[in-house]
Amino acid sequence: MSNISIAIHGGAGTILPDSLTPELERSYKAGLQEALDAGYEALEKGSSAIEAVEASVVSLENCHLFNAGKGSVFTSEGTHEMDASIMSGEDLSAGAVSSVIGVKNPIKLSRLVMEQSNHVFLTGKGAEDFAREMGCDFESKDYFFDELRHKQWLSVRGTDKTQLDHTSLKDEKFGTVGAVALDQYGNIAAATSTGGMTNKKYGRVGDSPMIGAGNYANNKTCAISCTGSGEFFIRAVAAYDVSSLVEHKNMSLHEACKEVVHHRLKKINGDGGLIAVDTRGNICLEFNTEGMYRGQRNAAGLNEVAIFS
Amino acid sequence: MSNISIAIHGGAGTILPDSLTPELERSYKAGLQEALDAGYEALEKGSSAIEAVEASVVSLENCHLFNAGKGSVFTSEGTHEMDASIMSGEDLSAGAVSSVIGVKNPIKLSRLVMEQSNHVFLTGKGAEDFAREMGCDFESKDYFFDELRHKQWLSVRGTDKTQLDHTSLKDEKFGTVGAVALDQYGNIAAATSTGGMTNKKYGRVGDSPMIGAGNYANNKTCAISCTGSGEFFIRAVAAYDVSSLVEHKNMSLHEACKEVVHHRLKKINGDGGLIAVDTRGNICLEFNTEGMYRGQRNAAGLNEVAIFS
Repeated sequence: MSNISIAIHGGAGTILPDSLTPELERSYKAGLQEALDAGYEALEKGSSAIEAVEASVVSLENCHLFNAGKGSVFTSEGTHEMDASIMSGEDLSAGAVSSVIGVKNPIKLSRLVMEQSNHVFLTGKGAEDFAREMGCDFESKDYFFDELRHKQWLSVRGTDKTQLDHTSLKDEKFGTVGAVALDQYGNIAAATSTGGMTNKKYGRVGDSPMIGAGNYANNKTCAISCTGSGEFFIRAVAAYDVSSLVEHKNMSLHEACKEVVHHRLKKINGDGGLIAVDTRGNICLEFNTEGMYRGQRNAAGLNEVAIFS
Repeated sequence: MSNISIAIHGGAGTILPDSLTPELERSYKAGLQEALDAGYEALEKGSSAIEAVEASVVSLENCHLFNAGKGSVFTSEGTHEMDASIMSGEDLSAGAVSSVIGVKNPIKLSRLVMEQSNHVFLTGKGAEDFAREMGCDFESKDYFFDELRHKQWLSVRGTDKTQLDHTSLKDEKFGTVGAVALDQYGNIAAATSTGGMTNKKYGRVGDSPMIGAGNYANNKTCAISCTGSGEFFIRAVAAYDVSSLVEHKNMSLHEACKEVVHHRLKKINGDGGLIAVDTRGNICLEFNTEGMYRGQRNAAGLNEVAIFS
């Protein structure tokens, strides 16, 4: 019997029950369920893990509530610069883009980089040129405009402050979406996408497009998508760190995820979380913040979305 | 007694004895020795490992023979887009830049990102803006113009071919410089810098600016700088892989470097090499290509530069 499994996240941070109205909480949960189902239904129909994680992330990118695609935050220049990456655990093939503007679904572009170019990582205008050659959908600034994001930006515009998307108090940065999946052929994959930090300057790149830091997949170990204070996830090489603990230290998937999120990241003050699956259908959702928008579903009947810890 | 140590590389590839004239071979060796001495003399004077690897890489960036800084290759648009990164093993702090144009020494800019910004990774125009605010030296296109690089570019311009800097036959890309060092305070550091691939398109980013892929340092394990077919080093998370084999599998530095270069990278067709040091002063220079421009020097009297295997 198949043990198809999928997990998704929509970012982690200081998400407290009284920071969300009941209506907004329902909206977030509906957005998560839709994305979870998009990926799961793909798996049920026999799609690959790559297709499933792409489907889930496209759904999250198209939802204005999450900081990726349509819901991306404003940079210091009032633009929306997006990063994404995708990796296949079957052959370690990978694709990533950073600082792309106007691309409707950066995760689709990442997959095209993986499958249609000789490269892994494309950035900026060059990545947009490649997207045009590949026939990717582009959207105007209006599509990416969101009243809440705009207000967040206006409150810090012209200052050196960056604001994290789901946290109102701390001057940190979260807000990423991601998915990991196991398909019926025994292959796993990971996908991650982000709209970056509110008011970000200087072409800052976080961990999301960095293979090994924010995203990683290897059938031998696990598939991982991270969300959190990206700089710390880069320095910790967080996604690959989980994989290496499984491979070289024989930790279980849960032990490895806990070790990275609660110890190795915490030691350098890294806040956030990650989601993981392995080829046996184990799912792990781990975070060291107050909450993480998340969901998980598998062939054994597990099907849930959650926000708080 | 202090066991200060430094190792450098100037790229790996299909470098065969008969592909270099005796005169050119002498020039390469002189360039390597100068860079090696710049870092070693810094260590002798009591500078930190970070200062030493920066000094060596600045020297290589200022030498027209190596594909970094002044000697950077031409992109498909006739520009020179450079990437670099630096990491301190003492506290895992790191800085990186990608796709910067006109910056004289991208490695200095990486260090400023590490020490003067809240970020780890800046790209493109934003990174150049930050460089200007920090007072970095900029150079005109003339400074980066080199007759050989220009001929390499003209031979593939207008085609989809990319050309590797030190290899005339294979359609792959090498050409990176790097340094790793141990200082008298027991701290290690790694620095890597590159001018990318001849005729590269689409804002391609290789492994050099990616912490964990092309560059990594951790006092607990080792400091690593890689050079080779970047896409494969990214997918292998090569630099951090060496560190994780030392940390989690208790391999010696040499065992870990050999395992990554000759087995784990080879398995996915990754060509190139890496240099490594640890806090005990062990040095390792490992490559799976015909040659690697390299050098090593330590307090015990070791002092050599080499090109072929």
